[in-house]
Amino acid sequence: TDLEESQCTGLIAPVFTPFNDDEQRTLNLDIIPEYAQYLVDAEITGVLINGTTGEGTLMTTKERKMVTEVWTQICSQTHQHLMVQVGGASLPDVIDLAQHAEQKGANSILCLPELYHKPQTVDDLIRYLQIVGRAAPNTPLFYYHIPSFTNVNINMGMLFNQVGDKIPTFKGIKFTSTLLDEGVAAVKAQDRKFTVFLGADTIMAGAYTLGFDSAIATTLNIFPEHGQRILQCIKEGNITDAQSIQDELNAAIEAITKNGTWVPTMKVAMNLLSPLNLGPTREPLKPLTKDNVLEMKNELVKLGFIQ
Amino acid sequence: TDLEESQCTGLIAPVFTPFNDDEQRTLNLDIIPEYAQYLVDAEITGVLINGTTGEGTLMTTKERKMVTEVWTQICSQTHQHLMVQVGGASLPDVIDLAQHAEQKGANSILCLPELYHKPQTVDDLIRYLQIVGRAAPNTPLFYYHIPSFTNVNINMGMLFNQVGDKIPTFKGIKFTSTLLDEGVAAVKAQDRKFTVFLGADTIMAGAYTLGFDSAIATTLNIFPEHGQRILQCIKEGNITDAQSIQDELNAAIEAITKNGTWVPTMKVAMNLLSPLNLGPTREPLKPLTKDNVLEMKNELVKLGFIQ
Amino acid sequence: TDLEESQCTGLIAPVFTPFNDDEQRTLNLDIIPEYAQYLVDAEITGVLINGTTGEGTLMTTKERKMVTEVWTQICSQTHQHLMVQVGGASLPDVIDLAQHAEQKGANSILCLPELYHKPQTVDDLIRYLQIVGRAAPNTPLFYYHIPSFTNVNINMGMLFNQVGDKIPTFKGIKFTSTLLDEGVAAVKAQDRKFTVFLGADTIMAGAYTLGFDSAIATTLNIFPEHGQRILQCIKEGNITDAQSIQDELNAAIEAITKNGTWVPTMKVAMNLLSPLNLGPTREPLKPLTKDNVLEMKNELVKLGFIQ
Amino acid sequence: TDLEESQCTGLIAPVFTPFNDDEQRTLNLDIIPEYAQYLVDAEITGVLINGTTGEGTLMTTKERKMVTEVWTQICSQTHQHLMVQVGGASLPDVIDLAQHAEQKGANSILCLPELYHKPQTVDDLIRYLQIVGRAAPNTPLFYYHIPSFTNVNINMGMLFNQVGDKIPTFKGIKFTSTLLDEGVAAVKAQDRKFTVFLGADTIMAGAYTLGFDSAIATTLNIFPEHGQRILQCIKEGNITDAQSIQDELNAAIEAITKNGTWVPTMKVAMNLLSPLNLGPTREPLKPLTKDNVLEMKNELVKLGFIQ
Repeated sequence: TDLEESQCTGLIAPVFTPFNDDEQRTLNLDIIPEYAQYLVDAEITGVLINGTTGEGTLMTTKERKMVTEVWTQICSQTHQHLMVQVGGASLPDVIDLAQHAEQKGANSILCLPELYHKPQTVDDLIRYLQIVGRAAPNTPLFYYHIPSFTNVNINMGMLFNQVGDKIPTFKGIKFTSTLLDEGVAAVKAQDRKFTVFLGADTIMAGAYTLGFDSAIATTLNIFPEHGQRILQCIKEGNITDAQSIQDELNAAIEAITKNGTWVPTMKVAMNLLSPLNLGPTREPLKPLTKDNVLEMKNELVKLGFIQ
Repeated sequence: TDLEESQCTGLIAPVFTPFNDDEQRTLNLDIIPEYAQYLVDAEITGVLINGTTGEGTLMTTKERKMVTEVWTQICSQTHQHLMVQVGGASLPDVIDLAQHAEQKGANSILCLPELYHKPQTVDDLIRYLQIVGRAAPNTPLFYYHIPSFTNVNINMGMLFNQVGDKIPTFKGIKFTSTLLDEGVAAVKAQDRKFTVFLGADTIMAGAYTLGFDSAIATTLNIFPEHGQRILQCIKEGNITDAQSIQDELNAAIEAITKNGTWVPTMKVAMNLLSPLNLGPTREPLKPLTKDNVLEMKNELVKLGFIQ
Repeated sequence: TDLEESQCTGLIAPVFTPFNDDEQRTLNLDIIPEYAQYLVDAEITGVLINGTTGEGTLMTTKERKMVTEVWTQICSQTHQHLMVQVGGASLPDVIDLAQHAEQKGANSILCLPELYHKPQTVDDLIRYLQIVGRAAPNTPLFYYHIPSFTNVNINMGMLFNQVGDKIPTFKGIKFTSTLLDEGVAAVKAQDRKFTVFLGADTIMAGAYTLGFDSAIATTLNIFPEHGQRILQCIKEGNITDAQSIQDELNAAIEAITKNGTWVPTMKVAMNLLSPLNLGPTREPLKPLTKDNVLEMKNELVKLGFIQ
Repeated sequence: TDLEESQCTGLIAPVFTPFNDDEQRTLNLDIIPEYAQYLVDAEITGVLINGTTGEGTLMTTKERKMVTEVWTQICSQTHQHLMVQVGGASLPDVIDLAQHAEQKGANSILCLPELYHKPQTVDDLIRYLQIVGRAAPNTPLFYYHIPSFTNVNINMGMLFNQVGDKIPTFKGIKFTSTLLDEGVAAVKAQDRKFTVFLGADTIMAGAYTLGFDSAIATTLNIFPEHGQRILQCIKEGNITDAQSIQDELNAAIEAITKNGTWVPTMKVAMNLLSPLNLGPTREPLKPLTKDNVLEMKNELVKLGFIQ
């Protein structure tokens, strides 16, 4: 891989992991080719696996590797950019997953911070990412900033200003936060040296206006056209349309998420609104009740997303 | 005052309170007419007094009334909208200040939450605002959401959805937070019934794109043209210019605030960059060292804000 | 006052402020002599006024001074130690209250941190206390550590280790927190140079065992014998009794506080269980419903506190 | 195992996991028999493995099982109570570890909450513990409350009051917090039905006075006599000695922990003060510098812990 050439920017769909509706929620790997084709048809050129949407931290290392192997094989054909989330496990497992991802040909890796012995300082975080980076020395590395899940609140502009060349493969972050001032400062830091993927579906139009040009957003699975059109409208200075598409998307998100937490409600919505059946979520994510599913469906009909 | 007619929207400058450079930091009321004219010349049509920038919580009730009296008199001539911040004191004092503001002809009042016995729920907050509203029954009332100072984190969309007609004068909020998803949800709530003033200088372009149309931002004192042009550019779909003006403003903000906390650095910058001398800040705000002031000046020269 | 001689240790009752049951909740100063005598009869030798229990931050400066004047006069006769809480207002008012307390003969002052422009570092806090200390240069000064209300979380051991002789009148703190490791470290710091008043009613027996010897606790108003006996038992090594008295007290506290927040429920309990009628609390404290009062009464009957 | 008979109370040492000083920090299982004998000689009758002190979350599932297998075998001979921490990994791994612990004969299991999809409510936590409990239906289950690491702040008294018989094997918690009021309420809840192991070394004397009778504390490895004597002194009403032993222990803890974070400094201290060499800690725990180790040694000499 030539790091200089790898284009790690743009819109990436953080994919769901398909499970069977059995007691163990076993992997349904067979549906992945169809899922990849669905995204290709929707002009989604990048895929993140084993992230939050993909329930990566709810799978064993072995399962995460199986998912990686299927997606690397498919993406070598679809030419989609494949990013693999390797963090959220014990460090020996994280190293193992990073090595595996590189060996299988992932285009980039994304890594959560240590969840238990959390980094307290920028230096702590850099030390951790150095270890992960050394395990996959030829693969661009991104840090996964998602303080609402990790309670790690290290300022991302400070990370960019202090990382220097300490981590040769470090290319940027997934910024899953709605604190836009911190996000914008990160985008602009070091002459825009690093890529900052926005992970906040409801404020994309504002973030793009402030200089963001990349996103990894769950709704790119379910409403791929919305996310793409918002970015396009902002590029064209069409704020009226950008805002109305964002409003439409936000109404859908509210209709979906009022029925439970993010991942389970989004997975139900994906099953309702796409031709795919990606199955249930795993414990301890709380599954929706039948009433919740029905209410979501009714609201999505009302909003015109379901005929 | 006819509530229906009062236009409480647009760009408002939260003014500094001028103090003399004596031991008590006594009020320098004499300079206020000149200050008002400076803002009129800069096309700033609204003024907030006794807010955070105005060190309202660092003054006695008597002093806050004196400031109110001078500004109400001047604004009756300049026809600027005058908003008075009445909170951040004991509730009897808050009631007294609200009555006084209405009696002197303030166009609207803004109110912090109780700082010690903080509201824990939306209901607690509504009860508090009802009491304040009853003290000024003919004056539009705004709630001052600024969790970084108050540690009151009540969701503003929920406030709008639950307030109903419980507070007849309630018209909206000052949203001093960079959590833009919460801000946008508030803007859109109840069919945009309420005004949401943005209080976050570095992300204005993004907020306007997402539907904000009003702001109360310290830098409207120092760089009034920047804030106004960003809003204008977004209205016109000129994102390129909006972004570059926002970038220029953010560079200035960084040069200023790296030398101390928000209010003292901004007051020094105002004294450096405007023709006015508004004096020092009060304790316990930490005054800048001479070195800090020099460094700020040098950076502002480098950025072209000082010749 | 000779600072060397003033004994600022032991058990102090943070008294309620008596209000009339009128719309303004006006001060009922007339009942204070009777209240003081009630405490004398209960062998309570120290009194804190205008604290949290005393709704100090819900009164105007003028009212706080009136309360101070009545209590200083009475305590000059009862020889109770009088501590006056002067913080939680604008700094000019805090300075005024500190000067007034000294002038009227208070034995010590207690001071909250600035509530809006909160101290971020130990140095910030020391600077604030220096200002307050200079306003009352002959009166022992205590800092009021109560992070659940102030969100100021500065470590108290660090304050003691860094304060040196920067504040000549500084004598210690009221530690209203249940983080006992921090409390014990403060007690032991600098060879026990400073007094640490415990402000946590339910863990007194444990704190005394770890080295605390002083407390300012609301329940010393209502159950003065319990607090005194727990301290006595620990001094005598009678852990069995200390624990059972603490258990009894904790059962009462639970019966009381399950019906609302701390101050309103405690004031209702005081009115139920003592011969005094100290009236209602002020807004925005939420008054108890009649059902809450009845339930509290029934539980206190069941526990044997009411015949 | 007969649940009724298993005595899960008293003092338990949370053991370090011995690693070799090689690059991978491989397991040094050979030293474990010697370690167990050291604890037996110190009259420590219970052992917790794979906890925080044991770096459990920094090991793979396979390594955690290897450690479990060695200790179960040894404890079957030493008759020490063996508690195995099975949480802090993906739920499939947690289930696997719980099954394995039961199968190998662990006397009890301890479980962290899910670290990424954290429980938000008592119900969420109960659902999680039900799943873990079903995986080891014949082994007493304890919940590991350690909010400073997990950011899960569910009130433990509420857990006890709501759990009912929903988790047949649930027996109590490890309470690693210094909020003693919450701890005491948990100890007393439901007529002391549940065991609450204190996980706070510096306040043991206070906690025992308030009714705690059990602890799992790192310093039971290094200073086993101190922890045991504090409990004994409190049982005998000898508060003077309890306090002076606690003071001595706290001085040692301060001398140790001022040189880094808890686990790395404690492991260094264990290597310095015991006859065992348990090796280094794993990344991302930050190892101590040589200067830190020297300073710790010097202070421990000064305090008389090293001749």
